[in-house]
Amino acid sequence: MKTISILGATGSIGTQALDVIAQNREQFKIGSISVGSNIKKLEEILEQFEPKLVSVKDDSDRLVLAQKYPHIEFTSGARGLIEVVSDDSDMVLTAIMGSIGLEPTLHAIEQGKDIALANKETLVAAGEIVMSKAKAKGVAIIPVDSEHSAVFQCLRGENLREVKKIILTASGGSFRDLSRSELSDVSLEDALNHPNWSMGQKITIDSATMMNKGLEVIEAKWLFDVDINQISTILHKESTIHSMVEFIDNSIMAQIGTPDMRTAIQFAFSHPRRMPMNNPMDFSALSQLNFKPMDLDRFRMLAYAYEAMEAGGTMPAVMNAANEYAVGRFLDGEISFTGIEEIVKSRMDGHAVVENPDLETILYYDKLYKTDMR
Amino acid sequence: MKTISILGATGSIGTQALDVIAQNREQFKIGSISVGSNIKKLEEILEQFEPKLVSVKDDSDRLVLAQKYPHIEFTSGARGLIEVVSDDSDMVLTAIMGSIGLEPTLHAIEQGKDIALANKETLVAAGEIVMSKAKAKGVAIIPVDSEHSAVFQCLRGENLREVKKIILTASGGSFRDLSRSELSDVSLEDALNHPNWSMGQKITIDSATMMNKGLEVIEAKWLFDVDINQISTILHKESTIHSMVEFIDNSIMAQIGTPDMRTAIQFAFSHPRRMPMNNPMDFSALSQLNFKPMDLDRFRMLAYAYEAMEAGGTMPAVMNAANEYAVGRFLDGEISFTGIEEIVKSRMDGHAVVENPDLETILYYDKLYKTDMR
Repeated sequence: MKTISILGATGSIGTQALDVIAQNREQFKIGSISVGSNIKKLEEILEQFEPKLVSVKDDSDRLVLAQKYPHIEFTSGARGLIEVVSDDSDMVLTAIMGSIGLEPTLHAIEQGKDIALANKETLVAAGEIVMSKAKAKGVAIIPVDSEHSAVFQCLRGENLREVKKIILTASGGSFRDLSRSELSDVSLEDALNHPNWSMGQKITIDSATMMNKGLEVIEAKWLFDVDINQISTILHKESTIHSMVEFIDNSIMAQIGTPDMRTAIQFAFSHPRRMPMNNPMDFSALSQLNFKPMDLDRFRMLAYAYEAMEAGGTMPAVMNAANEYAVGRFLDGEISFTGIEEIVKSRMDGHAVVENPDLETILYYDKLYKTDMR
Repeated sequence: MKTISILGATGSIGTQALDVIAQNREQFKIGSISVGSNIKKLEEILEQFEPKLVSVKDDSDRLVLAQKYPHIEFTSGARGLIEVVSDDSDMVLTAIMGSIGLEPTLHAIEQGKDIALANKETLVAAGEIVMSKAKAKGVAIIPVDSEHSAVFQCLRGENLREVKKIILTASGGSFRDLSRSELSDVSLEDALNHPNWSMGQKITIDSATMMNKGLEVIEAKWLFDVDINQISTILHKESTIHSMVEFIDNSIMAQIGTPDMRTAIQFAFSHPRRMPMNNPMDFSALSQLNFKPMDLDRFRMLAYAYEAMEAGGTMPAVMNAANEYAVGRFLDGEISFTGIEEIVKSRMDGHAVVENPDLETILYYDKLYKTDMR
């Protein structure tokens, strides 16, 4: 029986993770959870599960909940996230959105807990720090992103030194069929309408801008310890091949499946075993898979991600923070879709890289570049 | 340095294997070889390599060669094949065509040599005997067929008990776009014109009749110890995905590459390592992969293979022998293309299965069903 704590239990990944746990009560047990402000969904969770500790964002919510559920312990705020990962669970699923996941993830690693990583911003902002701590603590970081789970599966039983290239597939997001000039007046509603995957708002916008693939390239670099130039991307609109690894002998291993995040979530939980799951792919119904080279001029955010990694130091954290800020403004209806790119670009251009930053420095710039900076 | 002996060195697989060895002289060394009657090609091989022992089919060839190449040892006939696998090499590549490969393969296993298996008829005729001997001797049987090499690679680091299905891809062979009625007057020349792979004559005809996929289904059953009903096939005309494995969690692993047999040959030689190779696949040039359900009425030979496995005992050996006989007659221009199917069908219908046959029984029926049976 594996006890799993969840950072971000009411989000898209969190909800699907709870579904996986509910389907496999003999194998998995919920530990502690954190949620944001979606108290209604939290209360639905509490009908089904009995977490040891629940952390909410606002202390006012905590006070109300503590009265209503006297048998459950509640906490709140940033300290609450640390408490959630300090229980006696075996694994922490980091399904919280954005760089706020960084500190609790590091704390969980410090405690020797395995990490099911769904928070890619953690590795983008502080990949070097996170991976070296995980190595020192002997902690497994198992990716939950479908692309990285695919790569992780392609690498099973393989030797990392025999990897030639990691090929991340990209659906292309909501606007894949639009040209650059057609992007200027797209609506928020259109941007949130992803053709293949049902995901949270931030990642759906990141998919549309292709920043999501950029973050994934950086995430892959840290997870699999390869050079950034060994990671390429390809447009594959069906999202059937979730990603691939090419080896030095030209053999390419690919992981294929329905676009259902629960497969990757369950695999992260059950690893190294695989466990039965419903909703299999009907391969006999498959007729065609399509591929197109990635166009870095059309999808400039992906080019920015490679540039950020080349620049190194604080730049990836700055890019990520600027993106979180810009996506937030787009979701609030304050800027246009292409405005996201413009903000990221101008903030990266304005940043003087600090080399080999420590955690404090990263957190400083992360916070700074998420503000209006006026 | 791994020393590799080759049964069938002048055939398509044998030639490509020698190419792999020539490209990697620091890793691989040729041991002994057997050839058939292609003495011209043998002499080309002897310009490049110095095998310890050479076995030819006919003793008259041996006499001439022994005079011409006094520093090389020659032998001949069926006993010659046994001598080739009795040297001190580490691995034997069984690239000889047809069920004649069975006895020397068993002998090589007996000697504790790892097998790079390119002779699928061996497992079709006597899978149970071969695999249990390999297990008893702790010998690795590494498939060289591109489909089985793909499955083998998909299973690296995986647990066989977590396999749900093996999905073998089939290009469809020379006549994949023809209906059954259009098959009756196809020519030998057309049959030998495979759209994707450059292979020997027998296997090219087997691909056109789909018997090759049937033999592969049976081969996969024995190699990977799964139930015959766990093996399915799908038409995939590009031969880009070489085959797939679906696991209990719905994750599908696939191996992808150019249709170049040398990848699978080199992997069998270098396993468990992978080694660099030229001729990589240009994935950015890939635009579309197509799939179609297999039609067992259109490709009846595949249905016969499943029926032969259901019948068990001597039936797969009989089917294989009848097919070798029929393909031989087709290659000699004596029967039509659809005549191959008719002979296999009628010989299977006429055979009374012997359960749990020993090697002698299998060899008896193999020999009998390869004759005119008049």
